[in-house]
Amino acid sequence: MGLALKRSRLKDIEIAGYDVERGVANKAQRMGAIDRAASDARTAVREAAIVIIATPISAMREVMGEIAEALPDNCIVTDTASTKAEVLRWAEELLPRRVSFVGGHPMAGKEQSGIDAAEAGLFEGRAYCIVPSVSAKETAVNSIVGLAQLVNAIPVYLDAQEHDSYAAAVSHLPLVACAALFSLARESPAWPEMSQVASTGFRDATRLASTNPELTDDIVRTNREQVVHWVNRMVQELMRLRDLIEKGDEEEIFKTFAKIQFERDTYITTGAKRREEAAAPMPEAGVTVSDLLVGEWAARRTREIMKSLEEQERRARERRPRRK
Amino acid sequence: MGLALKRSRLKDIEIAGYDVERGVANKAQRMGAIDRAASDARTAVREAAIVIIATPISAMREVMGEIAEALPDNCIVTDTASTKAEVLRWAEELLPRRVSFVGGHPMAGKEQSGIDAAEAGLFEGRAYCIVPSVSAKETAVNSIVGLAQLVNAIPVYLDAQEHDSYAAAVSHLPLVACAALFSLARESPAWPEMSQVASTGFRDATRLASTNPELTDDIVRTNREQVVHWVNRMVQELMRLRDLIEKGDEEEIFKTFAKIQFERDTYITTGAKRREEAAAPMPEAGVTVSDLLVGEWAARRTREIMKSLEEQERRARERRPRRK
Repeated sequence: MGLALKRSRLKDIEIAGYDVERGVANKAQRMGAIDRAASDARTAVREAAIVIIATPISAMREVMGEIAEALPDNCIVTDTASTKAEVLRWAEELLPRRVSFVGGHPMAGKEQSGIDAAEAGLFEGRAYCIVPSVSAKETAVNSIVGLAQLVNAIPVYLDAQEHDSYAAAVSHLPLVACAALFSLARESPAWPEMSQVASTGFRDATRLASTNPELTDDIVRTNREQVVHWVNRMVQELMRLRDLIEKGDEEEIFKTFAKIQFERDTYITTGAKRREEAAAPMPEAGVTVSDLLVGEWAARRTREIMKSLEEQERRARERRPRRK
Repeated sequence: MGLALKRSRLKDIEIAGYDVERGVANKAQRMGAIDRAASDARTAVREAAIVIIATPISAMREVMGEIAEALPDNCIVTDTASTKAEVLRWAEELLPRRVSFVGGHPMAGKEQSGIDAAEAGLFEGRAYCIVPSVSAKETAVNSIVGLAQLVNAIPVYLDAQEHDSYAAAVSHLPLVACAALFSLARESPAWPEMSQVASTGFRDATRLASTNPELTDDIVRTNREQVVHWVNRMVQELMRLRDLIEKGDEEEIFKTFAKIQFERDTYITTGAKRREEAAAPMPEAGVTVSDLLVGEWAARRTREIMKSLEEQERRARERRPRRK
């Protein structure tokens, strides 16, 4: 995030950073991701206008408790965690009323984690979920929207329940499904032969099985109900396809997989266009931190993006072939 | 395959090609994938030493019937289909005794199909399953092994049942699982919001849902039992992980996903090394078609590869940390 902000058009930014692991903050400074390595979390936030908590979920509650007192008045606090309902509860419980909490979740993971996997372009064209707490001020919300836009992500407003349900379907379930897909092949007695036969399809379909298990653990613990719900849906859907295959009605099988292919291709094509347009270069150069904090710049930019997305969707609807 | 063979060190090769779709063979000739576009399948095979049937499985039986009479004596016939038991039955039934059938399955798919998706490097470092018919001569088997090696693939010997079972686990099940993963999200009423939140993880995990539905249909029809078996295994594995998540034992969850991550990372690392070594540049330049047909060159090269793989595995075993 630091690398991305430093590369953005933000003029007068100063970033202080702290990591519980020795040497990480110094390394971040050497990489140009932060300007100043702080000796502890409290020192890092002492004069901050915006605080980004980007720890594993399992550490977040403790970090909030630790920095609460040190946060300046009117400061805006955000996070980058994969689940939101629990995080918002902790913020409500632990952060003082004089600050605004606006949850954030950039949808831009990769299997690797840690400072060595940092990448300035990670957020480009990706969705950035904005999940404000009930008490967050509107300008605070706009500031985090602005932050997302500065790293070329696409802000998406959601409440915590919506976020956790959607993320369970398109992000947490895939983690579990890919792990299952890999694990059942790996545990088979024929794995030595199977693994020789496995190819790019297997590699890609199981990529998420290489996710940091701490992250998976954090996610399934703080979003348990939703994850279980979507795993059950996956079981049902697999049984539907299995029954179809077992029954052997060639036309039904073809139609079912053809519909899925058509819809995925449509999703990939329109998704790529949407991202391209939304992540187009920003007209303004040299946004300042105060522009960001007032939130007006983000609000204006959001209106522009929404207009262009609506236009795109209208065009896509016109192009799409009619289907029964 | 034509592009790959033309780029290989095969000196005196001439490739004739035929496609049922008008213009495809001519296009292949313009692309340099074949030397001569034949007007029909019978003409294409008339003087062939090796015949490669690379049609959808649903067309294969008909093609075999069509070319049977025209095949020269001692010709070697192979295919590239995704399932093998049915194909070998058809070969047994339809091809004359004076030719050898050796089934082939290069494990190098991509979602796109057709001549425009052709790629000379497609087979590099990929497994190439060799599934000989019971009546195939040893030199014929070695010739197809040689073919695989010329396109820099790694030959893997299997019988038809083994092939169909392993391929069901690491190739056909992923097709069905990815289709299920995409379809259940797509059919959700919240899809418009969900799709905005979906990211690279969802895209990669559902890539195989964009597979040509004709191919999926062919596979599940000709390998029904095995596919159903492995879909059932996937359902069981998902329910195992679901129960674990529902029970919420943090340590058990972490251990389970950590084991999966460790094993996938090991598989990816050793797999990449294995491919790199096996696909190393061939010592001999200018192999001739008669070298290939006699099969000795392939046999020698295979011995070299096996030796290097055994060496590699021994080293990997020594490096691997001990686990309970």
